[in-house]
Amino acid sequence: MEKLEMLYEGKAKKVYKTDNKDLYVVEYKDDATAFDGAKKGKISGKGVVNNKISSVIFTLIEKKGVPTHFVKYLSETEQLVKAVEIVPLEVIIRNVAAGSISKRLGIEEGTKLSETVLEFCYKNDDFHDPIINEYHARVMGLASTEELEKIKEYTFKINEILVEFFKEKGLNLIDFKVEFGRHNGEIILADEISPDTCRLWDMETNEKMDKDRFRRDLGKVEETYREVLSRIE
Amino acid sequence: MEKLEMLYEGKAKKVYKTDNKDLYVVEYKDDATAFDGAKKGKISGKGVVNNKISSVIFTLIEKKGVPTHFVKYLSETEQLVKAVEIVPLEVIIRNVAAGSISKRLGIEEGTKLSETVLEFCYKNDDFHDPIINEYHARVMGLASTEELEKIKEYTFKINEILVEFFKEKGLNLIDFKVEFGRHNGEIILADEISPDTCRLWDMETNEKMDKDRFRRDLGKVEETYREVLSRIE
Ligand SMILES: Nc1ncnc2c1ncn2[C@@H]1O[C@H](COP(=O)(O)OP(=O)(O)O)[C@@H](O)[C@H]1O
Ligand SMILES: Nc1ncnc2c1ncn2[C@@H]1O[C@H](COP(=O)(O)OP(=O)(O)O)[C@@H](O)[C@H]1O
Ligand SMILES: [Mg+2]
Ligand SMILES: [Mg+2]
Repeated sequence: MEKLEMLYEGKAKKVYKTDNKDLYVVEYKDDATAFDGAKKGKISGKGVVNNKISSVIFTLIEKKGVPTHFVKYLSETEQLVKAVEIVPLEVIIRNVAAGSISKRLGIEEGTKLSETVLEFCYKNDDFHDPIINEYHARVMGLASTEELEKIKEYTFKINEILVEFFKEKGLNLIDFKVEFGRHNGEIILADEISPDTCRLWDMETNEKMDKDRFRRDLGKVEETYREVLSRIE
Repeated sequence: MEKLEMLYEGKAKKVYKTDNKDLYVVEYKDDATAFDGAKKGKISGKGVVNNKISSVIFTLIEKKGVPTHFVKYLSETEQLVKAVEIVPLEVIIRNVAAGSISKRLGIEEGTKLSETVLEFCYKNDDFHDPIINEYHARVMGLASTEELEKIKEYTFKINEILVEFFKEKGLNLIDFKVEFGRHNGEIILADEISPDTCRLWDMETNEKMDKDRFRRDLGKVEETYREVLSRIE
């Protein structure tokens, strides 16, 4: 397998073609952004740590029966994945209120939600990833009813897998964001799962162990990312 | 039936108790607000016109099988309604893109939507009526799953009734907002349906025949409200 030209560069990763049209190489960067790109920075070592964390988590999810894009860990910052056409939806799961749901709806941060909340956002920087519902997703041609059903089924399943997994590591999974893609007409989990895309609170101390340390200038950003990796390895 | 003290005053109506605890008197005002209360004004004669229009429409909807709060037309600005506990949801139907959906999602105003879109907003001025989904509605305790199903069923039915009704009057029903309430444990249609709560475009000229004339300073505001009434009477 040969790594060819870069296909696109996002805020946290670069995606490269390979000599196999069904496979891409994803390269994890140290760049960090928050608040819709308004806050920019670098978290040194984040690329290495997130590539590792995401590899561990995708391996677990695949083993538990949810199809994913993950093929293999290639190097400290690179992994081989199945090429997908990304469904432009950010699919969010919330077990406990934090961040935007607290701000938008006035639910106090830390409130355990009486049921697992799923949200769809339209992944589009120009429109600031607005929250949408399934009618919007269909009329905009983002996904079909069948695809939305699969995406919801997989996302709730991933939540069950991850809540249990992180609990064993002393981490409370507050919320997370996933992205899906189409590969040979099938919906599979794509993108990444890492402290950039999850809220994780230490079960003993409630300390934030995720990107909120960067967003909210809480300090010990690099250390926290490394601590999450060391707990799950 | 005796009209007693005012229970609350909203942006467009006042609600009064009566000597029957199951009945309220609603009084329609000329006050008009837009953009989350940022724009304020008066549309002279609006109270009289909307009271009439809403009475005609609620009578039709009730006749077609959707339960409503409407009891009877009392006077130029007053109607008698069943007292409800309002479900704090603004339920929106969109047949054609206009207003917030165009702005939020970049769907050009006037685009016929490939399916009828339903939206729930949390009716709360402090949070600016944010768009939510059914998970949010449940975790916030706004409505149960069964109530949400009833509300969706009734709202789609109302859309069918009103699209046909307005078409016969040469008006294209672009979108509208409704509110529901609980009366003796049952969900019934409450509030109002009028040019304040619908977008109506003339079928021949595409001229806006609704509150957008006020919102966007298009002129002929009073005349347009009266024209809608004269077409449906
Ligand atoms: N398997 C895949 N195939 C194709 N694109 C992918 C795959 N996995 C993730 N992507 C996309 O790679 C891009 C780069 O990722 P990232 O830097 O996180 O971007 P963003 O700035 O959109 O968050 C994103 O658009 C993401 O959706
Ligand atoms: N049948 C009813 N029983 C009780 N309250 C009602 C009924 N119908 C409408 N309402 C409520 O009356 C209030 C006044 O109406 P309005 O002036 O339109 O208020 P708003 O400023 O919230 O739009 C609103 O809170 C509305 O939900
Ligand atoms: Mg990303
Ligand atoms: Mg109102």
